Amino acid sequence: AVAAPAIAQSAPEINWRLTSSFPKSLDTIYGAAEVFAKYVSDATDGKFKIQVFPAGELAPGLEAANEVSKGTVEICHTCSYYYWGKDPAFAFGTAVPFGLNSRMQNAWMYHGGGIELMNEFYAGHNLFGLPCGNTGAQMGGWFRKEIKTVDDLKGVKMRIAGFAGKVMSGVGVVPQQIAGGEIYPALEKGTIDAAEWVGPYDDEKLGFYKVAPYYYYPGWWEGGAYLHIMINTEKWNSLPKNYQAIVWAAAQAANSDTQAKYDFLNPTALKKLAASGAQLRPYPQDVLEACFASAKAAYEEISASNAAFKKMYDAMSAVRADQYLWFQVSEHTFDTFMMNQQRKKAL
Amino acid sequence: AVAAPAIAQSAPEINWRLTSSFPKSLDTIYGAAEVFAKYVSDATDGKFKIQVFPAGELAPGLEAANEVSKGTVEICHTCSYYYWGKDPAFAFGTAVPFGLNSRMQNAWMYHGGGIELMNEFYAGHNLFGLPCGNTGAQMGGWFRKEIKTVDDLKGVKMRIAGFAGKVMSGVGVVPQQIAGGEIYPALEKGTIDAAEWVGPYDDEKLGFYKVAPYYYYPGWWEGGAYLHIMINTEKWNSLPKNYQAIVWAAAQAANSDTQAKYDFLNPTALKKLAASGAQLRPYPQDVLEACFASAKAAYEEISASNAAFKKMYDAMSAVRADQYLWFQVSEHTFDTFMMNQQRKKAL
Repeated sequence: AVAAPAIAQSAPEINWRLTSSFPKSLDTIYGAAEVFAKYVSDATDGKFKIQVFPAGELAPGLEAANEVSKGTVEICHTCSYYYWGKDPAFAFGTAVPFGLNSRMQNAWMYHGGGIELMNEFYAGHNLFGLPCGNTGAQMGGWFRKEIKTVDDLKGVKMRIAGFAGKVMSGVGVVPQQIAGGEIYPALEKGTIDAAEWVGPYDDEKLGFYKVAPYYYYPGWWEGGAYLHIMINTEKWNSLPKNYQAIVWAAAQAANSDTQAKYDFLNPTALKKLAASGAQLRPYPQDVLEACFASAKAAYEEISASNAAFKKMYDAMSAVRADQYLWFQVSEHTFDTFMMNQQRKKAL
Repeated sequence: AVAAPAIAQSAPEINWRLTSSFPKSLDTIYGAAEVFAKYVSDATDGKFKIQVFPAGELAPGLEAANEVSKGTVEICHTCSYYYWGKDPAFAFGTAVPFGLNSRMQNAWMYHGGGIELMNEFYAGHNLFGLPCGNTGAQMGGWFRKEIKTVDDLKGVKMRIAGFAGKVMSGVGVVPQQIAGGEIYPALEKGTIDAAEWVGPYDDEKLGFYKVAPYYYYPGWWEGGAYLHIMINTEKWNSLPKNYQAIVWAAAQAANSDTQAKYDFLNPTALKKLAASGAQLRPYPQDVLEACFASAKAAYEEISASNAAFKKMYDAMSAVRADQYLWFQVSEHTFDTFMMNQQRKKAL
């Protein structure tokens, strides 16, 4: 018998469809999947093609991973925490309240065993996941009225979902689930009082500043929010080793690329928003402290009944304490000095 | 004529040698090139092999890019600012005093035109460069005596090179050029009074805390120091497009991976150093202000006579002002709150 040329094994033609959880208009988030797919295609001379579809074409945005899990679509680009309702442990794949910032997420995932830990869990849902994009610390949302103290949050109807909604409800907020496109009219009519979205670049497109001008920070529930590609387990296992390696490197590169894109675009958007009338406000210290306490109670409550959640919480917490110890030394001191120069217009 | 199979074009066997500027013992910096080379090899099923050699085997560490420029070696992994003596514009590829932090470097390079701008310049040296690793904000060096005010820097013999050395000389420091292996004995004998290296993980290996216990921060001359792969221009142009794409993605992935590795390893090393007697000290505010002024004067002096340097300085400065405006909003507020929780042992 004559052996088939090795190349037939290592460079098969493969076509996958990717269902994104995001609309095309969000070129940052949606674009992360396109960057990933382009890296894969270019690396394989077009032999491994992944076609990206916006939310709604192959699956609704919040159903992306469910369809991949069933095998109706090979791969999706989504937020792991969208599936919090199935199991709260999904939250750790994206961001958890008072969790890690973007660099710390990478430290945990790529060198602290995070990717392996998440995939032990994802495997139970027939998924293989890799980080593919990060927004950095998000903003804390748009409010129709100013929040001066934690009491001002009582009864506030806020569009905020999942784990963050649960923590917010602990300080009196009434969380609302509303799709992206319906937020603006709901704020305008006063059906809701507040809404969180992402950060300046994405938020500016939706025009919230016109109807809810108080723009709070930080988004303490998303200090470094990951996006993920999630691949059907059998589809992932069916790839030749070199294609798996290309997917890994392409996702890691697109992960970093997306953070860089957000970081580059956000400053200009922030200036535009401020010029358009957005009123920037830090959350008052007592609000942050109350939310931190509410988050701690929520972590403990869920940990008591969910072993996978507890395992991830314990792992994240250990990394978190070390990371915030170190980052406050050189990194934070450098940034703080430079920010002071910026405020003095010395840069 | 029968066309050759496309595959012969797109998957040729290629063997390159990579000369690293670093010793194997620095698994962080040296390891970045190994991660990069592994990604390339795995993506091509072993057809494109890049063998990594430590400093000294193919070329001295500080000569790596010079050998690649001449074409004696195909590729190196180095710090662009090592070649500051040839042209100060090389500095912008790594880090410049009071420049950008690691995330901002990525924003500038990948989305703000930085990679293109650097390569316009590198092309004149027969090099094509891509970021491949970042240390994050480095530490500010080890001192035998405490520095309480800028006057304490007068006459201090410090192992610090390049642009940082020039800025330090503006505040009275006497910069010294000493190779890595000779720093410890020089500090021990008192031939020098201070030395800068990298950060906790790398510094701990060299044992400086025993002979120069005052460990200052931040390393304001390296707020986010890049490593680069640099490829001989003809060699880069000779690669098939898919191999170029693989090199690009592998370098971007390894860039992020190295930062993640540093971030994961530094906290433990910092704790070990503190337990071993290292005395952590922030640079006094007047030292930072004096160095900032000295840096500004140096930027202006060099810009006056070097057009490439001025072009990069202007581009970096514009990005820098915007970045530090934005980062002080959500990112810095989130980090600061979390660091306060860490200090209260609440994490």
